[in-house]
Amino acid sequence: MLIVMHHQATDAQILAVKQAVEALGLRAEPIPGSMRTAIGVLDNQGYVDDSAIRELPGVREVIHVSKPYKLVSRDFHPRATIVEVGGVKIGDGEKVVMMAGPCSIETEEQMLTAARQVKAAGGHILRGGAFKPRTGPHSFQGLGIAGLKYLSAAGKAVGLPVVTEVMRIEQLDIVCQHADMLQIGARNMQNFDLLKEVGKLDFPILLKRGMSATIEEFLAAAEYIVAEGNNRVVLCERGIRTFEKATRNTLDLSVVPLIRELSHLPIIVDPSHATGKRHLVPVMARAALMAGAHGLMVEMHPEPEKALCDGAQSLDPKGFEKLMLELRRIEDFMAELAV
Amino acid sequence: MLIVMHHQATDAQILAVKQAVEALGLRAEPIPGSMRTAIGVLDNQGYVDDSAIRELPGVREVIHVSKPYKLVSRDFHPRATIVEVGGVKIGDGEKVVMMAGPCSIETEEQMLTAARQVKAAGGHILRGGAFKPRTGPHSFQGLGIAGLKYLSAAGKAVGLPVVTEVMRIEQLDIVCQHADMLQIGARNMQNFDLLKEVGKLDFPILLKRGMSATIEEFLAAAEYIVAEGNNRVVLCERGIRTFEKATRNTLDLSVVPLIRELSHLPIIVDPSHATGKRHLVPVMARAALMAGAHGLMVEMHPEPEKALCDGAQSLDPKGFEKLMLELRRIEDFMAELAV
Amino acid sequence: MLIVMHHQATDAQILAVKQAVEALGLRAEPIPGSMRTAIGVLDNQGYVDDSAIRELPGVREVIHVSKPYKLVSRDFHPRATIVEVGGVKIGDGEKVVMMAGPCSIETEEQMLTAARQVKAAGGHILRGGAFKPRTGPHSFQGLGIAGLKYLSAAGKAVGLPVVTEVMRIEQLDIVCQHADMLQIGARNMQNFDLLKEVGKLDFPILLKRGMSATIEEFLAAAEYIVAEGNNRVVLCERGIRTFEKATRNTLDLSVVPLIRELSHLPIIVDPSHATGKRHLVPVMARAALMAGAHGLMVEMHPEPEKALCDGAQSLDPKGFEKLMLELRRIEDFMAELAV
Amino acid sequence: MLIVMHHQATDAQILAVKQAVEALGLRAEPIPGSMRTAIGVLDNQGYVDDSAIRELPGVREVIHVSKPYKLVSRDFHPRATIVEVGGVKIGDGEKVVMMAGPCSIETEEQMLTAARQVKAAGGHILRGGAFKPRTGPHSFQGLGIAGLKYLSAAGKAVGLPVVTEVMRIEQLDIVCQHADMLQIGARNMQNFDLLKEVGKLDFPILLKRGMSATIEEFLAAAEYIVAEGNNRVVLCERGIRTFEKATRNTLDLSVVPLIRELSHLPIIVDPSHATGKRHLVPVMARAALMAGAHGLMVEMHPEPEKALCDGAQSLDPKGFEKLMLELRRIEDFMAELAV
Repeated sequence: MLIVMHHQATDAQILAVKQAVEALGLRAEPIPGSMRTAIGVLDNQGYVDDSAIRELPGVREVIHVSKPYKLVSRDFHPRATIVEVGGVKIGDGEKVVMMAGPCSIETEEQMLTAARQVKAAGGHILRGGAFKPRTGPHSFQGLGIAGLKYLSAAGKAVGLPVVTEVMRIEQLDIVCQHADMLQIGARNMQNFDLLKEVGKLDFPILLKRGMSATIEEFLAAAEYIVAEGNNRVVLCERGIRTFEKATRNTLDLSVVPLIRELSHLPIIVDPSHATGKRHLVPVMARAALMAGAHGLMVEMHPEPEKALCDGAQSLDPKGFEKLMLELRRIEDFMAELAV
Repeated sequence: MLIVMHHQATDAQILAVKQAVEALGLRAEPIPGSMRTAIGVLDNQGYVDDSAIRELPGVREVIHVSKPYKLVSRDFHPRATIVEVGGVKIGDGEKVVMMAGPCSIETEEQMLTAARQVKAAGGHILRGGAFKPRTGPHSFQGLGIAGLKYLSAAGKAVGLPVVTEVMRIEQLDIVCQHADMLQIGARNMQNFDLLKEVGKLDFPILLKRGMSATIEEFLAAAEYIVAEGNNRVVLCERGIRTFEKATRNTLDLSVVPLIRELSHLPIIVDPSHATGKRHLVPVMARAALMAGAHGLMVEMHPEPEKALCDGAQSLDPKGFEKLMLELRRIEDFMAELAV
Repeated sequence: MLIVMHHQATDAQILAVKQAVEALGLRAEPIPGSMRTAIGVLDNQGYVDDSAIRELPGVREVIHVSKPYKLVSRDFHPRATIVEVGGVKIGDGEKVVMMAGPCSIETEEQMLTAARQVKAAGGHILRGGAFKPRTGPHSFQGLGIAGLKYLSAAGKAVGLPVVTEVMRIEQLDIVCQHADMLQIGARNMQNFDLLKEVGKLDFPILLKRGMSATIEEFLAAAEYIVAEGNNRVVLCERGIRTFEKATRNTLDLSVVPLIRELSHLPIIVDPSHATGKRHLVPVMARAALMAGAHGLMVEMHPEPEKALCDGAQSLDPKGFEKLMLELRRIEDFMAELAV
Repeated sequence: MLIVMHHQATDAQILAVKQAVEALGLRAEPIPGSMRTAIGVLDNQGYVDDSAIRELPGVREVIHVSKPYKLVSRDFHPRATIVEVGGVKIGDGEKVVMMAGPCSIETEEQMLTAARQVKAAGGHILRGGAFKPRTGPHSFQGLGIAGLKYLSAAGKAVGLPVVTEVMRIEQLDIVCQHADMLQIGARNMQNFDLLKEVGKLDFPILLKRGMSATIEEFLAAAEYIVAEGNNRVVLCERGIRTFEKATRNTLDLSVVPLIRELSHLPIIVDPSHATGKRHLVPVMARAALMAGAHGLMVEMHPEPEKALCDGAQSLDPKGFEKLMLELRRIEDFMAELAV
C-alpha cells in the first residue's frame, strides 16, 4: 500500500499517518519527493483495509498494491489447476471442453433429446437449469427438483456428466446428488455465504463472472471458495454490463489471457449469455477459443423456437454439431500454431 | 411488445412471426410502414418472453413495452406505500428518516456508544452490520450473532428500532428476532431466493440497488418481495458502478424522482457507500434530500479512525450531529418551498 | 509514480527498472517489502509517461501518483478563479448564475421571445445553439451564422451576455464577434486542437464534460486551455454515459464537490442534457445547487412542443420562471445554512 | 417510431399525440391493447426527432425503430464496400490487411527502420502519428509536419501506403499530400465538422470508434462522411470504456460480426489501444481475426522500451514478425474452415 500525502501536508500529518500504519502492526516508510511525500506500507501479508488511514488529515490518496486474493493467484501457485468433472478434465494442456444443453429443463423428453444431441455431436458436459434466476418473478422459474432428476437421468442415459446452477444453500445436498458440477450464476458471484458453503464441498464449481465484476473481484470471489478448502473451481466469462445495448452483454475476451496469467484456475467462455443472439454464438465461440479459453458453455435446445427461456440465444442441434466440428479443427490448428 | 421486421422480410416470414405470437396466446397486429413492417403484440398481461420470436427469420428487433414488474408500479397502485419500522414511518408525506450507525458492529460498548450518539442527534433508526459482505475472504466478516445481540440491546437501550443486513436464508429467523428491519445488500439484490423468502415475512425490508442494476431491474427485484405478499419494502440508492473511479461508486440521484414517479414504494439514499469518502457525505446527503429522498442511511462511528470496516466513509459523532441539524432545516425549507 | 515488481522479480530485473527510470532523468528508490519490491519514482515535475517501463520484465504494475494537470489544480493555485462573462461573475462567493435559452436558434422571433423570457425571470446569461452537434447527419444542424446574429441581437436587446457552442477552429473569429462566452461541447472535450485555439483567446470558455470522461481527463482538458494562457474557464457537468437508460445520461453530482476541492475553476451543472426529461430538470437543478454548483445551464423554449431540437428536455417559460424563484430561495437558504 | 401511452391516458391525450405526429407530416396508427394504447408512426423516411412528442401529456415512452444512419446500412446497400488504399484492398473477400508502425513518429531514422521492418514481415500499410492526441498538454504532442514527411518518405522508400491521424480541418491539405489514408481518432469520432470535411474528399478514411460510442453512433458517424459523398470508409474497433481497469479499454469483439451484418463498410480491429499491454496484443489479434475482422492495426516500434508514446503496448520487430506469420496461417485456416 502506498499513501500519497497532499502537496502541503505538514510534518505532523505525515507523522500521524506513520503512527496509524504502525498501529496496524505494519511498517511505514516515508519517501520524500520533490512535490510531495508518499509513505510506503510494508510487511503486510495481503490486502490492507485502509479505513483507518484514507481520510486522515493530509492524505490525498491511498493506492493498493496487494490484491484481495492469494490462493487463486498464479504468483503464489504457479502450477495450473486441472479440474476434473466426472472424468472430463478442464485446464492447461487438456482438450477444450464443451458444456452444452438447454437454458432450462422443460420436460424429461426435451432433456433426453438434448442430451443425445450433445453427446452425438461430441459435447463433454451436459448443462440444464432446474432453478432459474429471472429478472422478474412472473417469468418461468424452472422445474426445480423434478428438473434436476430429468437432467441427471439424461446425463446417465448418454454417459455425460452434468452441470446445473444452484441458487440457495439448502439446495446444495439435493443438487450434489444429481449433478457432477455446481454452477454459481453471475447474480450470485458475490453471494459470499453461498461461496463459502460450496467451498466446504469436495465438488467441482463453475463460477460465473458477475455482471459488473472486475477481474480482481472475480478472483476474490473464487478465493472465497478456495479458502474453504475446495480448489476445484472453473471460472466462466459471460459478458459484462456496459453502455452498449446491441448485444445482451459485452463479451470481454481479454479476460481469458489475463486470468490465465493471474490465476492457476481454468477459464471458460459462455458466448450465449454474452451476446444473447444465436447467430453470434458460433463466431464468438471461435474467437474465445483463439483467445485461449479452456472450454465453452453454450445453450443448445432441440427446438429453440419453442424454448421456455433464452430460445433466441440457443443453438439448434444442427448449429451445435457444426460448432463442435469447428471446435475440433480450431483446437488442432492451435496446437500446430503453438509448435 | 413490438416486433420490427427486416426491410426485406417476406410475407411468409411475417406470417410465421404472427403465428408464433398467436401460439403464445397473444394477438398480433401487423403495421405495414413505408420501409418495413412492424408487428404489435397485444393482449399480454405483462412482460412477454421473446425467446420464441427474437431470432425468427426476418425479425430485426423486438422492443418491449411491458415492464417485468407490476405490483410495485404506481401505474397500477397510485397510492403511496408508507412503511412502518418500529413506530417510524417512511414514505410520502412523512418526515425524512435518518438511519445511522457503524458499518460493522465491533463490541458491545462501541454499539451502545454509537446508539446513544445517533439517538442524541435525533436519528430515527439504528444501523449496524453483523454479517459483512467483503470482497475478499481475508477481510473482517463481522461478529455474527454476537453482534446482532449487541445491536438489538443498544437499540432497546436508547429506544431506536434497528436495521441490519441479512445474507442467507437460514439467518432470517434469528435476525428477525433481533432486528426491526432487514437489509438486502447490493450484492444480493438479485439473490432471488433470498428475496422470495423475505417476501413471505411480514417484516420491513430495505432493498439496496445492485451495483449495476437498471431501475427496471431494481423494481423487478422489489416485485419478487411484494409478489410473495410483503409490501413493506423501502428502496435504497447507493451508487452504481461506472468508469469513474474518483468516488467509490457514482451516486445516481435522478433515480429518486424517477422511482417516486414509477413506484409507490419509498426511496432513500446512502451517500456513504456511494461516495466512499467521509467529507463528501454531508454534501451529497443534502443533494439527496433536495432530490426528494424519503430518508438517508449514513455510516457513523464513534471513532472512525479505529473502525474495522469502512472507517473512511463514516462520519464522526460531531459530523453526524451537524448533518442532523441541517437535515431538519432542509426539511423545513422544502416544506416552505412546496407551498 | 510507483513501480510494483512481481513477487519473483530478480535483482537484475529490479536493477534494469531502476536504470530505465534514471534514463528518464528521474530518481528511483527501491522499497523492499516482505512479499515484493516496489520502486518509488521521484523528482518528476508532473505526470510521467510510463511507456518505457510498464512492460519491462518483472514489472507487475505501474501506479501513477502525479496527475496530468497542474495549472488548474487547487493544490498549486489555492485561490478560486472567478470568471466574468459580460459583467456576470461565476465562481466561489458569487451569486449562482443561470444560463438559459433554447437548444437551437430557430428564428429571429423565437430567439428574441426566449431572451425576453429569460431576462424577465431573472436569468443571467442567454444560451442558444447556432451550430448543433447531432448524432446523425440527417437531423437539423442549426442555422449557422444567421443564428449567431439572432442570438447576439436578442442578447443585446434584453441586456444579457450570450453563450453558444463552437465546433470548429475557423468559426472562432465569427463566434467571438457575436458571443460573450464560447461553449466547447461534450463531444469535443478532447478535441485538443480546438482546446488549444480557445486557449489562445482572452475569452470566457464553458467546457462541458465528455460523455465518458473521468474527472482527471476533464481537468486535463481544461489544462489544455489554461496552458495556452486563457484561465477564464468554467466547467460544466452534463451527465455521463452508463448502463442506465432511464435517463439520457447519468448526472454525476459528486463531481461538483470533487471539482471544487481539486480545482480553482468554477463548476456548473446542466440538468437538461443529463436527464433528457423536462419534468426531471427542476428537481435535479435543486439537487445540483445543494451540491454546491456555481451555476446552472438549462434549456428553455418559448414553445417546447414545437422545438426543432431537444424539446422534450426544455422547460417552458412558466416552468423556467418557477425554477428561477426556487433558485433564489435555495441560494438564500444555503447562505443561512452556512452561517 | 412507436409511442407508448400511459395506462390511464385519456382519449383526448391520444388524439393530441396523433395530431402532433401528423403535424410532422407522418401517419399515426393507434394500436389499442388490453392495458394501454400504443401509437405507431409510419411513412417516415428515416430517424424521427421525437422532441415534439416525448413529453406530451399521457406519453410514457417513445421507442425508435429507424436508425440515425441509412447510407452505411447493409439493409439498403447489401453489396460490400471494398476500400482501396494505395493498391491495398480492404473488405469482404479480400486478404486480411495489416496496418502497423509506431504510435508516434520520432525521427527520420526510427520511421525508416520501422517501415523496413513492417515491410519485411509482410505488413500492408504503414502507420505513424505526427499529430498526437494526449490526455494532458504536458505530454509529447508529436512532430507535426516534419513527422509527416518522415512517414511519407519511409512509406515510399519501402513501397507501403501510409495512414496517419488528422486532428483539425486546416491540416487536411497537407496530410493528404503525405498520406494515403486519413485516420479519425476515437476522441474525434463525433467531431462532426471534421467528419463532414473528410466526407468531401475522395480519400480513404479510417474511422475509430469513440470510447463510449454505441454501434449505432459509430455507424451514424460514418454516415456523416458517406453523406458528403466519400464512401471510402474503414471502421476500426479499438476498445470501449467500461468499469474494468485491468486493460486500458475493453475490446468489444462482438462488434465485428455485428458491423459486418449491419453495414457494408469494412471493419478492422486495433488490439494495441484496446488492451494497452504488449503481451496481450498477439492473442487478441488472433481472436479478432477469428471474429471476422477485415484487418488489424497494431503498434510496432523498433525499440519499444525507448518509445516516446505507448511503448508498453507496442510490439517489437520480432513480435510483429511472429504475429504476421500467425496471421497468414490463421487466414488460410479460416478459408479452409469456410469450405
